[in-house]
Amino acid sequence: MNTRIEELIKELKRNNFDSALVTSTANFYYLSNYYTDPHERVIAVYVSETIDPIIVVPAMEVEDAKAAGWNDTIIGYHDHENPWQLLNDFLRGQEKLPASMAIEHNHFTLERYNNLTSCFQNVEFFDLENILADIRVIKSKKEYTLLKQAAQFADLAIKTGVEAITEGATELDIIALIEYEMKKQGIQEMSFTTTCLSGAKTASPHGTPGQKKITAGDMVLFDLGVIFDGYCSDITRTVAYKSVTPEQEEIYQTVLQANEKAIEASKLGTPVNKVDQAAREYIESKGYGKYFNHRVGHGLGIEVHEYPSMSSDNTLALREGMCFTIEPGIYIPGTGGVRIEDMMFMTKNGAEILTAYPKNLQIID
Amino acid sequence: MNTRIEELIKELKRNNFDSALVTSTANFYYLSNYYTDPHERVIAVYVSETIDPIIVVPAMEVEDAKAAGWNDTIIGYHDHENPWQLLNDFLRGQEKLPASMAIEHNHFTLERYNNLTSCFQNVEFFDLENILADIRVIKSKKEYTLLKQAAQFADLAIKTGVEAITEGATELDIIALIEYEMKKQGIQEMSFTTTCLSGAKTASPHGTPGQKKITAGDMVLFDLGVIFDGYCSDITRTVAYKSVTPEQEEIYQTVLQANEKAIEASKLGTPVNKVDQAAREYIESKGYGKYFNHRVGHGLGIEVHEYPSMSSDNTLALREGMCFTIEPGIYIPGTGGVRIEDMMFMTKNGAEILTAYPKNLQIID
Repeated sequence: MNTRIEELIKELKRNNFDSALVTSTANFYYLSNYYTDPHERVIAVYVSETIDPIIVVPAMEVEDAKAAGWNDTIIGYHDHENPWQLLNDFLRGQEKLPASMAIEHNHFTLERYNNLTSCFQNVEFFDLENILADIRVIKSKKEYTLLKQAAQFADLAIKTGVEAITEGATELDIIALIEYEMKKQGIQEMSFTTTCLSGAKTASPHGTPGQKKITAGDMVLFDLGVIFDGYCSDITRTVAYKSVTPEQEEIYQTVLQANEKAIEASKLGTPVNKVDQAAREYIESKGYGKYFNHRVGHGLGIEVHEYPSMSSDNTLALREGMCFTIEPGIYIPGTGGVRIEDMMFMTKNGAEILTAYPKNLQIID
Repeated sequence: MNTRIEELIKELKRNNFDSALVTSTANFYYLSNYYTDPHERVIAVYVSETIDPIIVVPAMEVEDAKAAGWNDTIIGYHDHENPWQLLNDFLRGQEKLPASMAIEHNHFTLERYNNLTSCFQNVEFFDLENILADIRVIKSKKEYTLLKQAAQFADLAIKTGVEAITEGATELDIIALIEYEMKKQGIQEMSFTTTCLSGAKTASPHGTPGQKKITAGDMVLFDLGVIFDGYCSDITRTVAYKSVTPEQEEIYQTVLQANEKAIEASKLGTPVNKVDQAAREYIESKGYGKYFNHRVGHGLGIEVHEYPSMSSDNTLALREGMCFTIEPGIYIPGTGGVRIEDMMFMTKNGAEILTAYPKNLQIID
């Protein structure tokens, strides 16, 4: 049994829960060390003090789970079988049926819940979300190392992208080069769809790259990250192509200052909303407040978006082991936008910036 | 109001549901024609006979939604706001609060459901899943065209991958070339993580590509697809590198025959489980039954896995407009595996195979 499962069992006891059934891809990986994307199929880690941990996976993945190092019980199910019923049968056979079970309310769908409760009829259900979030939000030294390496690949990806900007190149051409380089470096997967937006399209925080050619006078915004050994990075940089207008420059410098003010605000013990506030108040002071229409950042780790949410209503205090982004932006519809995003890690000495690609305004020639 | 929303309203009336709140990425796109990946944020289309359709999106995406052609009401929310409360306030302001609401039980999490029910306290909730699945499972002519084009790109991707097999190339090298070529062709995104597995790794239906080099005597398995204008393709081909053993050849021919028998069984009116059975019985007759450990295929469209599930317990009859995969496989742990997957579309004249890359056993030199 690994230390993460031991820690979970300790928390279950503290909350008087008999057992936990963990089904989200990220938490399943966190506890089992077996990464799989189940699509619409079910995967689960069953954890209880009274029995060794059990995983439930599609039958065709049983060998993969063993190869990933899972030495405890594996229940493999075929597509026509009900995995919850198989788990129930197994526990019943061992006379280890629990009286209570904690599940992830932010992952369990109503359909699966109805199926689960019909298989576990005399079990009381509770929410596991906060327990797991509290465990995962504090990263270990090993997780720090992986996140830092992931951030270094993100820096390299930005460098690759910036160097790929040439007359006539499309957004997708540049992305193709970035991802090609990452794959050649051994990166199996990006942490989300790589974004390269140019010109007026940069005004959309979640815009879609396409066949648009980069043209002189465009701002070019990269937002990307990699998955390194299960851990995600996330970085955004914005550069200018050939020239920059005074308005573009003012927006850029405002975002850069906001980014740095939020970084300065990121101290051990500071509530998260003060970090958001530091960036937001500066942008507001420059008259761009209504164009900064999202939170200042988000936690990341196994998932590219996880706790803590760096939003204006989150009073959680920053602690050693937390990893999150700082990514203020200004987006003016029809004109364009700038976002500058760094990955931060709270060490015992304070905030460390994991991403290192330069942030001064670059005018690419 | 588009015809898909009209169709949904008709079905809501037939079921005596006042309204529907559609929140999954795929169904949101299907109804709104605005594609967005909300990560952990909420998106929703609210549909009711008594009021024009409404979408709920993060504030930063309001302009994107308009640009995608959404002309009806948009409720944009900031990260500190409760989107369901904003929707409730809006409907209350219009005196249009519903008495009942259908939601996707296979998408709504317990957490969101608890939030929703606290905002809509006097509303009765029902499951929308089957209604939407029944609408989406029958594709239009336009959807057929997009799926066919997506399949053609998948053929090209396989061709690119097969041609990239050379001494010393790793699985990830080959994937890098495939995805580079696709991006250059204008494909923004693959429909799932591109798979290239070689040698013993092919024994794992959901294995992970890595730095393993292709070596003489390996079988090389490609499983991939693209998203073309919102629609997914999915194809698998397996080739041999340099040489093939009699056992590899026998496995290959068995899978190929099973693939063709399932295709032959795919006739209008045939229940889905007969398609699975056609492949499975053949593989069993050759003594490999226990090594074919998944269903014969799955529906696809906006999602790479959607209805109909081509499994042994699904008695749904094939109808004009259905799109699905046929992908039997044999996987022998420690040795290797073969899978051959095609994309099928049921036209009024019967099954059409959308994927066209050759299926005879190729020995790459």
